Amino acid sequence: MIRDRFSENIKEQMSSDEWLILEENYKSDENLKYESLFALSNGYMGIRGSHEDGTKNTLPYTYVNGVFDKSETFMRELAALPNWLGIKMYVEKQLIGVENCEILEYSRVLDMRRAILAKHLLLKDKNGRITLVEGMRFVSRAHVHRMCVRLYLTPVNYSGIVEIENIIDGSVINFYDAPRFKVKHTYVTANENLQKNGIYMEAATRDDHLHVGTGCYLEVYKDNKKLLRNRVFHAFGEQAVEFGDFHAKQGTCYQLDKFVSVYTQRECPQYEIHKKAADEIEKFMQDGVDAELAGHCGVYRVMWREANIEIEGDFALDRAVRFNIFHLMSAANEHEDRVNVGAKLLSGEEYGGHAFWDTELFMLPFFSYVFPETAQNIETYRYRLLDAAKVNAKKNGYKGAQYPWESADDGLEQCPDWTIEPDGTCYRCYVAKYEHHVTAAVAYGIYNYVKITGDMDFLYHKGAEILIETARFWASRCEYVKEKDRYEIHQVTGPDEWHEPVNNNLYTNYLARWNLGYVSPLLRQIEKEQPAVYRKLIEKTGLTKDEQKSWHCIKEKIYLPKKEGTNLLEQFEGYFDLENIIIEEYDKNDWPIRPKKLKHKKASQTQIIKQADVVMLMHLMGNEFSPAMMKENYDYYEKRTLHGSSLSPSVYSVMGLKVGDDSKAYRYLNRAAFLDLLNMQGNTREGIHAANTGGVWQTVVFGFAGVSLSEEGVLQISPHMPKEWERLTFRIHHRDSWLEIHITKENKVQTKLLSGKCKKVIIHGDEVIL
Amino acid sequence: MIRDRFSENIKEQMSSDEWLILEENYKSDENLKYESLFALSNGYMGIRGSHEDGTKNTLPYTYVNGVFDKSETFMRELAALPNWLGIKMYVEKQLIGVENCEILEYSRVLDMRRAILAKHLLLKDKNGRITLVEGMRFVSRAHVHRMCVRLYLTPVNYSGIVEIENIIDGSVINFYDAPRFKVKHTYVTANENLQKNGIYMEAATRDDHLHVGTGCYLEVYKDNKKLLRNRVFHAFGEQAVEFGDFHAKQGTCYQLDKFVSVYTQRECPQYEIHKKAADEIEKFMQDGVDAELAGHCGVYRVMWREANIEIEGDFALDRAVRFNIFHLMSAANEHEDRVNVGAKLLSGEEYGGHAFWDTELFMLPFFSYVFPETAQNIETYRYRLLDAAKVNAKKNGYKGAQYPWESADDGLEQCPDWTIEPDGTCYRCYVAKYEHHVTAAVAYGIYNYVKITGDMDFLYHKGAEILIETARFWASRCEYVKEKDRYEIHQVTGPDEWHEPVNNNLYTNYLARWNLGYVSPLLRQIEKEQPAVYRKLIEKTGLTKDEQKSWHCIKEKIYLPKKEGTNLLEQFEGYFDLENIIIEEYDKNDWPIRPKKLKHKKASQTQIIKQADVVMLMHLMGNEFSPAMMKENYDYYEKRTLHGSSLSPSVYSVMGLKVGDDSKAYRYLNRAAFLDLLNMQGNTREGIHAANTGGVWQTVVFGFAGVSLSEEGVLQISPHMPKEWERLTFRIHHRDSWLEIHITKENKVQTKLLSGKCKKVIIHGDEVIL
Repeated sequence: MIRDRFSENIKEQMSSDEWLILEENYKSDENLKYESLFALSNGYMGIRGSHEDGTKNTLPYTYVNGVFDKSETFMRELAALPNWLGIKMYVEKQLIGVENCEILEYSRVLDMRRAILAKHLLLKDKNGRITLVEGMRFVSRAHVHRMCVRLYLTPVNYSGIVEIENIIDGSVINFYDAPRFKVKHTYVTANENLQKNGIYMEAATRDDHLHVGTGCYLEVYKDNKKLLRNRVFHAFGEQAVEFGDFHAKQGTCYQLDKFVSVYTQRECPQYEIHKKAADEIEKFMQDGVDAELAGHCGVYRVMWREANIEIEGDFALDRAVRFNIFHLMSAANEHEDRVNVGAKLLSGEEYGGHAFWDTELFMLPFFSYVFPETAQNIETYRYRLLDAAKVNAKKNGYKGAQYPWESADDGLEQCPDWTIEPDGTCYRCYVAKYEHHVTAAVAYGIYNYVKITGDMDFLYHKGAEILIETARFWASRCEYVKEKDRYEIHQVTGPDEWHEPVNNNLYTNYLARWNLGYVSPLLRQIEKEQPAVYRKLIEKTGLTKDEQKSWHCIKEKIYLPKKEGTNLLEQFEGYFDLENIIIEEYDKNDWPIRPKKLKHKKASQTQIIKQADVVMLMHLMGNEFSPAMMKENYDYYEKRTLHGSSLSPSVYSVMGLKVGDDSKAYRYLNRAAFLDLLNMQGNTREGIHAANTGGVWQTVVFGFAGVSLSEEGVLQISPHMPKEWERLTFRIHHRDSWLEIHITKENKVQTKLLSGKCKKVIIHGDEVIL
Repeated sequence: MIRDRFSENIKEQMSSDEWLILEENYKSDENLKYESLFALSNGYMGIRGSHEDGTKNTLPYTYVNGVFDKSETFMRELAALPNWLGIKMYVEKQLIGVENCEILEYSRVLDMRRAILAKHLLLKDKNGRITLVEGMRFVSRAHVHRMCVRLYLTPVNYSGIVEIENIIDGSVINFYDAPRFKVKHTYVTANENLQKNGIYMEAATRDDHLHVGTGCYLEVYKDNKKLLRNRVFHAFGEQAVEFGDFHAKQGTCYQLDKFVSVYTQRECPQYEIHKKAADEIEKFMQDGVDAELAGHCGVYRVMWREANIEIEGDFALDRAVRFNIFHLMSAANEHEDRVNVGAKLLSGEEYGGHAFWDTELFMLPFFSYVFPETAQNIETYRYRLLDAAKVNAKKNGYKGAQYPWESADDGLEQCPDWTIEPDGTCYRCYVAKYEHHVTAAVAYGIYNYVKITGDMDFLYHKGAEILIETARFWASRCEYVKEKDRYEIHQVTGPDEWHEPVNNNLYTNYLARWNLGYVSPLLRQIEKEQPAVYRKLIEKTGLTKDEQKSWHCIKEKIYLPKKEGTNLLEQFEGYFDLENIIIEEYDKNDWPIRPKKLKHKKASQTQIIKQADVVMLMHLMGNEFSPAMMKENYDYYEKRTLHGSSLSPSVYSVMGLKVGDDSKAYRYLNRAAFLDLLNMQGNTREGIHAANTGGVWQTVVFGFAGVSLSEEGVLQISPHMPKEWERLTFRIHHRDSWLEIHITKENKVQTKLLSGKCKKVIIHGDEVIL
């Protein structure tokens, strides 16, 4: 048991192994990976799993979701905020830290059940003094403005004075380890005592001057007596430091609690931030760490009751799936509809904390089925930014609403037009210019969210308006080609970014067609059921019957490329004319090896693709294709997909199972589930792959458990359990109901209604009355 | 030859080994020592020998002599100023630095002749890329506001883009590695481009708001072509960083020059500092590094012509003596009379950069004989602070001028009344309260300086006034004890600080007596020779005949403790009544071992003393004691001195030779000469022991060469060459003359008049006409 590595202080509350992720050696080269893996978030803020005592190879970032800044970079990105983790302990000026001491014992453990990061260090300094340092930290989900580090310090073979520095470090900069891209997004505006004691730092973003205040108070306890003496506060430029000391006796365990609070100008006027933080810490100290921790764990208990997936018989995968769910559910915010979920959650700076189509197509299904309130927030975020999407469309010469490829807080396009090469030259980046399918993803997300949750209120008052404006965008995006009497979308990039731009990407055209075709029947339904809502919608959008007619016309005549006389869908116009290279070799993990024929060619000259594109379409619109057609296309494209994106394997896994080719499904899931844990893409240091976490959930629930909704919205379950699994259990919300689903090795399904009124489900194609 | 470790770029100009101090391995534990050993100074500023690429275990301090700040500490101390050394070079984001790469070859060399610090590093990064980094830095003595780092970079086995950061780091704090004592003495007031390019940082001291501006410009050259591209300036809080890059080809050597300039508000109004620095750098770049380096080396050539001591036949000691002279002469300022020489020169933060009695008694003889202009500056510093010394006296209830035990820029006492213990408790520090002999040292310094240099102008217009005011102080410090009909000085500490306080410390009483007795004849002489000067002096000081009479009376009746009926001088009243413990064991270096009898006792209860006290008196006032008396006292106290201060061995060495006991003289000199090079006190990290450097010079010149002045001021030379030496050569100024002195193994003296009109010297007691 992993918990046996810890002493009683930590051990007694620690979960069993299926909840624990262990780092069992300190290697500074792996710091950045573990900082991502061990990131903690409560939806409001996130902090990477850096060490309190400071190390090299660290990106010790704290983010508040939604606090962005651009400054001299190309985009508004999540600003690294003052790092409140710092606690340095010294004995006779020797830092008791992992890089200053010989490490006799080392464990750090992410306890996912309780959302805490625990550590156990036995350190020997240069003078032979041995110190046991244990502890844990959490970012409270019971009160999102409260964070805590608790350490237990025991001098093993000496007695002496322990000197402590309680630190807030405002010198953090984004991209700290990439000289060319380093940027500081904040400036320190206050560095002072929190109250009489304690430390407080306020920093503001450079563009918007949005202030963020961080307060910390540190105390040392033994038998409930406060021991920290000789406090001295120092404002060392961008470091707030409170010094203190206490006398430690050999063999005695001392408890250090660091109480932290963060507030921003979004929550209160600037002049009140300091007071807010100070008051919060005062209340936090009155409540005590134990009570706060109990509250925090209580919230997570409820969350896990919703979100946990148990895979019996496959311990490692069971834990890895849980790891993905943990990060996905931790980063999202159930209380706040101004923020989305970034492509790296709140665990890293890559992609600037921006929302992509990843949210709607990879993560939203999880939230819709498991945390519908969070899903509603994510959808409402898009509604809040509808006006900005209209500005985007107009700027680009289109009508309606064009959602940005990368979305921060203001809804304007954050995907940069230019990228800096390693040699310092700038090259034009065409992603935002050509890759428009995100607008279809937003529309599809609304459809899907409403279908799963039955949240008609959202549809009527927010979603329908978005759907009208996105349809309007697509109508303006299509061109009528007279000689062929059809509508086409030119110069566009589909999900496969290795062919950029193309004409008539099937995925994009198909989803545009779907959006255009979906609105009119919806409006007719609303007109009938909610005439007031309908009137308001028409009034607000100025939608006319003529415009609707034109949509119908486009929908009917939009070009959907296909190989004549076959079932083969063509990824884009002319794709089949490209050199027909296929993947013939696979590595030991069954991962496709880049074909040798590609060596001196660009992928764009061939049929080799980066990620699911036609297959992604079938994943979303499966009901519209025949099983044979799906199988044929799956087989074709599977041989040509190199999975250069983390968004690809899970889709192939789900679709493989759907078309009856489950040869790779289990391995795809394994790869996806361990993608970050084993740093398989080599870039986990830059944060957890958020879309992949949602993909893992989809692979289990939509793939192996075979969950889907019928056209009428009835829950269908047709599992294909892998031979490695004994039993699968999970819970999902469907409309008003909450169901627990057990699936046996033999694909037997047991459905239990936990709450609500769901009357029937379709299991293996048969209606079952609950 | 050490220079063979370098490639041609460095090698061809590098000196031969007797001028070089080599660090031949990188051990981060030794960083702080080498930072002191490799400190460079031009009198105006000093910078420790930290690495440009940043390491752990570093105190990368830059000081401008005379820029002090107190803030929340106990004293005004030299403020660590923004560090301008930083140059970081990256290849594919890998820092090419000593702690990030495998070190294949490593040498750093202090070239004392040219006052440059050179380096040769062959570094292999994690990707196997090997880079040769060589270079050198200097702090120009030709233009004290110019500093330079030049690096040569050669990619050995790769080509690629090298990214560079040119850095000024304003986050430095004093006592960075002592958590309890950390203090930041400055705050950053500007962080901006120097001009269009380049970086500029201005910081101000916290108490006086004295601004210090630092400008830097970095360029990369190949065949005189400027290569640095893509410059981007960043103000990262307290770091000014200019990014740039260039393309480096395998096997090609690129030259990086970093031009630096520092100005303070002492040299120009605050609003002009930035312009001053920018203009200086522009001129520096026009002149070029080679020209500046030539000028700098030219100044040092002249300085070495004055200061060098050649000891033939004893290579290691010859170089070690040179090392001490190098640091002593580098730190002092030949152009500036507002600054003194701190106890750690400009090479470390210990003792806050304060001047002690060390200046007058250990360093001033060197400057008086070798650099009389610098000596004059040092003496003028005391005159500038005469008014402050009067304030000190008044504050303590005395008359006249009492010089502070520790002196910074304002002349007020900087020796703290309180000291913080490691456990955080404050204890009362009595040094400033009781240790008053510094005021005698200042008076003696004037006497000695004038005697050596013949600078009567200084004596008339500055020195005499000081001597009157210090005599006045001593008169007020003495108490008349009626029952004994004598004057005494109670509650006082002599040089030996282990007996604190005592009554009637002989050293102090004797020097007070000397000061009181010296002034009246001097005034009579001035009255006769310079009546106008005399009138002015009397007017300014208000000195009356009655006061002079009272001084005479005190002088005649001051108590000078002595063992009745013997030649033995008593260190203080009652010393001989203390337990008579003597030193009986010596370690392998012939260094006294603390007597076992002292184990459970305080030294103050015994006759064991810290350092030369009676022997120090005899060193200063040798002419007043008979040879027999000197020998007897030397023998007595030598057995009781543990040399707990670096101010002790050199005095014992000189005096040992004088009294004919040269048994330990050579070993004392060795110890003193290698004190810092071999870190024999374990605290070289805190800076070079300045008094010891002067002591080393005195040991060679006054001790082994036997240089002294007769009462009439005639130069006397009576060498006692150690058997290890073949020949000794040095040059000294004496009054208007400059002499070169050669001494052979057989103590034969050859004196050459280099300039001036000196007519005779006394060699081995015999007058020799030049």
